[in-house]
Amino acid sequence: GLSDVLSETHPASIAEFSEGLSTEETWKLLDYTDSQQQANIFAFYTPQHQLELAEGVNHERFAPVLEKMSHDDRGNLLRKLGPKFVEALMPLVAKADRDDIKKLLSYPENTAGGMMTTDFVSISENMTAEQAISMLREKSPSSETIYYLYVLDDYYHLQGIVSLRDLIIAKPDSRVRDIMSDRVISVKVTQDKEEVAQLLAKYDFLAMPVTDEQNRLVGIVTYDDAIDVVTQEATEDALHMAGVGNLAENYLEAKFTSIWRRRAVWLSLLFLAELGTFSAIAHFQDQLDKLTVLALFIPLCISTGGNSGSQAATLVTRALALGHIKLGDWFRVLRHELVMGIMLGLTLGVIGFARASLTPESVINPPAKVEAAEAKENEAPPEKVNRFMLAHTVSQAVVCICLWGTMVGAMLPLIFKKLGFDPAYASSPFVATFVDVTGIVIFFSLSKIYLL
Amino acid sequence: GLSDVLSETHPASIAEFSEGLSTEETWKLLDYTDSQQQANIFAFYTPQHQLELAEGVNHERFAPVLEKMSHDDRGNLLRKLGPKFVEALMPLVAKADRDDIKKLLSYPENTAGGMMTTDFVSISENMTAEQAISMLREKSPSSETIYYLYVLDDYYHLQGIVSLRDLIIAKPDSRVRDIMSDRVISVKVTQDKEEVAQLLAKYDFLAMPVTDEQNRLVGIVTYDDAIDVVTQEATEDALHMAGVGNLAENYLEAKFTSIWRRRAVWLSLLFLAELGTFSAIAHFQDQLDKLTVLALFIPLCISTGGNSGSQAATLVTRALALGHIKLGDWFRVLRHELVMGIMLGLTLGVIGFARASLTPESVINPPAKVEAAEAKENEAPPEKVNRFMLAHTVSQAVVCICLWGTMVGAMLPLIFKKLGFDPAYASSPFVATFVDVTGIVIFFSLSKIYLL
Ligand SMILES: [Mg+2]
Ligand SMILES: [Mg+2]
Ligand SMILES: [Mg+2]
Ligand SMILES: [Mg+2]
Ligand SMILES: [Mg+2]
Ligand SMILES: [Mg+2]
Ligand SMILES: [Mg+2]
Ligand SMILES: [Mg+2]
Ligand SMILES: [Mg+2]
Ligand SMILES: [Mg+2]
Ligand SMILES: [Mg+2]
Ligand SMILES: [Mg+2]
Ligand SMILES: [Mg+2]
Repeated sequence: GLSDVLSETHPASIAEFSEGLSTEETWKLLDYTDSQQQANIFAFYTPQHQLELAEGVNHERFAPVLEKMSHDDRGNLLRKLGPKFVEALMPLVAKADRDDIKKLLSYPENTAGGMMTTDFVSISENMTAEQAISMLREKSPSSETIYYLYVLDDYYHLQGIVSLRDLIIAKPDSRVRDIMSDRVISVKVTQDKEEVAQLLAKYDFLAMPVTDEQNRLVGIVTYDDAIDVVTQEATEDALHMAGVGNLAENYLEAKFTSIWRRRAVWLSLLFLAELGTFSAIAHFQDQLDKLTVLALFIPLCISTGGNSGSQAATLVTRALALGHIKLGDWFRVLRHELVMGIMLGLTLGVIGFARASLTPESVINPPAKVEAAEAKENEAPPEKVNRFMLAHTVSQAVVCICLWGTMVGAMLPLIFKKLGFDPAYASSPFVATFVDVTGIVIFFSLSKIYLL
Repeated sequence: GLSDVLSETHPASIAEFSEGLSTEETWKLLDYTDSQQQANIFAFYTPQHQLELAEGVNHERFAPVLEKMSHDDRGNLLRKLGPKFVEALMPLVAKADRDDIKKLLSYPENTAGGMMTTDFVSISENMTAEQAISMLREKSPSSETIYYLYVLDDYYHLQGIVSLRDLIIAKPDSRVRDIMSDRVISVKVTQDKEEVAQLLAKYDFLAMPVTDEQNRLVGIVTYDDAIDVVTQEATEDALHMAGVGNLAENYLEAKFTSIWRRRAVWLSLLFLAELGTFSAIAHFQDQLDKLTVLALFIPLCISTGGNSGSQAATLVTRALALGHIKLGDWFRVLRHELVMGIMLGLTLGVIGFARASLTPESVINPPAKVEAAEAKENEAPPEKVNRFMLAHTVSQAVVCICLWGTMVGAMLPLIFKKLGFDPAYASSPFVATFVDVTGIVIFFSLSKIYLL
């Protein structure tokens, strides 16, 4: 029957094909399985769906599922359900689980404590390999992982780690203390979850032990959650970089108005910031009136700053995210990007010079304007602009703007990180907008010097 | 002595602290350990460092390390060392490893075949749990993973999977066929590695089985390599989005000229593309001469297109990367972004109207210009521009450009994917540049209609 099919199918597959069912239908489907399988399936629904399911059923029905969920997953869920929900639910949950939940909820979401599970296997160093294996068999068959066993002393201090592989290979009567590896790598419970995922990936661990201030083992972070964190952080960075804010949900399934609100807020802020360009150009309007040709180079100048800035910012942001550079490397980055900015600027400057010196005479000194000037008898006719002076001005502006964009782009992520903001915001259009305004000022100031 | 320290330290840590040594010094250090530990350490050096080490030592010294390396890592390394190096090395490598290397090198790098290892444990369904465990102990203590065992028939078809957890928990005399899970999820050897990593993450597998055309098990992809692929793909996407091209190396350690070359190529291409704005404005120069105030709105118009385009493009690119949308969803995306683009455009249009209608009279109709026109006695003075008509034009342009940017940004990643390019390129500044040019055309065309 249906029960057999459900018990033999991977919970992720069941979650996938039942994603379209209503809350009521989903709970009816789940009734065909035991509470352990229900918990397994439940863990594979999207966070949004989990919320709906939890809120759409009475607490008595939900409590046993919660008890069987993996400790980290239920922590995440309860954090989203909020303190009122948790308080109402707690009396229905077994004491051990209740204590565990209270403990896990006390850690902030974005730390090791917020992503770890407390469901690990601990042994003593005096056990033999054989004893350890039979203890696994009897006491911990359903722990989050049984492939790493954590060797603790009486004060819960982590003494060593022994893998199930080591236990299987060892002679049955060898002592755990002799086969465990005692140079243990662990993270602190307060450490940022992105760093934890990076360390787990670096050492290829199945699970990373998490210790508290007193060096006691309080949990483990498993590889599957580390992969999820890497994916989430990449999404977060991409959205920050593009100025979308946080849009964690599935883009087509999230509420339209909620997406619209967040996108509109960002675009409006950017639009308001970009109004700075309006004032910048207005400030130079006299110049622009005399020499309309300058307007032709505005988009070129500002996009040069934006592009070189976003290149540098993305490289630095990504290097920070991958741990290739640290805050302390700021001077190396500065020096690197200073030289790079000049080299890139010169490259673009040459192209800019070539293009600007090809500007047709009629565009630089429009006949209408020259006539109009000549018509004013009481004034001297304006000097005509030399195309090479124009080209010189444009290329010098491009060099300056490219260097400026590169420096701003490279330094802002580091400054943001230092100030405690997400460095990814620094490659957002905000920076491009900032460089847009300064690019206009640089270009018009140079034109004033050379052309007017 | 040093040997003891090295054998007790995690190979990743040894690789890290010895990263600064010269090639010769590194090989001297490695001499203190056996070839298995050498291979373990070697695998944790950066790809660049691995290349230098392999090329900086004679083949006889390198062959035993290669033999002990994990099968996927050595495949990746040999792919980078090139066919000539491989050919010279092969006679020094044991027959079994030689065949294995040849087989793995035959798969393209970006597929399941290019990231899998052939070093898995296979058993027959007739074994008992006890037999399977003792077989593990004797034959496969150093396999890539011993936590999943793959049940094959005589033709290497994958029948089922049994985890070491299942074996430990089961009664010693139970048959593998009775405890294995036989609804096996696997990937094809030709499948894209990003998809493979996503599937592994979805099912929380430690390893994903890889089968060939005939459904025979040819390898497994392990969780640690899946994490690396997720990280690499996120970096690749971020760099593509920012127009940096592929810069896989550590940014501060890569060769300066090689980074400069790639950044310069991209910036130059973008600069050349942006020259289109020059021609676009030149085309409307008459208008600009008559009404210099239009120039003030140029940066605003083009950045609106760029920002809304990059928002939409990033959302769609990320949704594609996460598997939230597929190519077939293009119509849903189109409809969604059409409505979104109009709503966002209206939001910005209101701000644009407010700002434009506050433009000081002296900026809209500069006194100098009005006088100059009056001086030309034989011509009628030009009509003055009404500030509300100007505001109306600006806001209408902003609505159109925002909608256009949103549509282009949302559709291009899908079109790129359809054509076989990386969709991440679609949120690159190239798109912004394209929208810049069209934004100028939209704005000046509307001004022509309403203002002149
Ligand atoms: Mg439990
Ligand atoms: Mg790794
Ligand atoms: Mg978990
Ligand atoms: Mg999980
Ligand atoms: Mg982050
Ligand atoms: Mg974060
Ligand atoms: Mg091997
Ligand atoms: Mg997962
Ligand atoms: Mg591997
Ligand atoms: Mg690896
Ligand atoms: Mg990709
Ligand atoms: Mg790729
Ligand atoms: Mg721009």
